[in-house]
Amino acid sequence: MCEANAYIIKNKETENELIMESVDTIKPEDGGLLLVNIFGEQKFIEAKIHSLSLVDHNIYLMQESTKTA
Amino acid sequence: MCEANAYIIKNKETENELIMESVDTIKPEDGGLLLVNIFGEQKFIEAKIHSLSLVDHNIYLMQESTKTA
Repeated sequence: MCEANAYIIKNKETENELIMESVDTIKPEDGGLLLVNIFGEQKFIEAKIHSLSLVDHNIYLMQESTKTA
Repeated sequence: MCEANAYIIKNKETENELIMESVDTIKPEDGGLLLVNIFGEQKFIEAKIHSLSLVDHNIYLMQESTKTA
C-alpha cells in the first residue's frame, strides 16, 4: 500500500498541521478537497493540493486566503 | 518506496496522458509544477494537481485553460 499523510501548510512552512493520516485519494469537490484514507474515512477541507513528497509519504495542502464569492 | 505515475487529464477523463512515471515530488514553480521522479529526472509542466489516488499510484494533473496575464 502506498498511502501518505496530508498536512496543511500554515503561514510558516515549519508549522504544518496534520489533517489526515494514511490518505488514499484526494478529489476536488465543492470548492475544496475530499480526502479519503485507506480505512474509508472521509474528510472535507477547503484547500488545494500544494505539493507532494511521496517517497516521504507527505501531501501538502494550502488553504486559500481569497475566495470567489 | 512509494512513487506514483503522473497523468494529465485531457478533455475527456478517459484519455489521460502519462507525463512521468515513478514521481517522487511535485512542487509549484513559476506558474506550473516541477515534477521529480525517484531517478532524479525533472520535468516542468504548466498544470495544477487535480487529484490523487495513491493506493493505485496515480497522480492527476490538469492544465489551465485560463491564465492571468
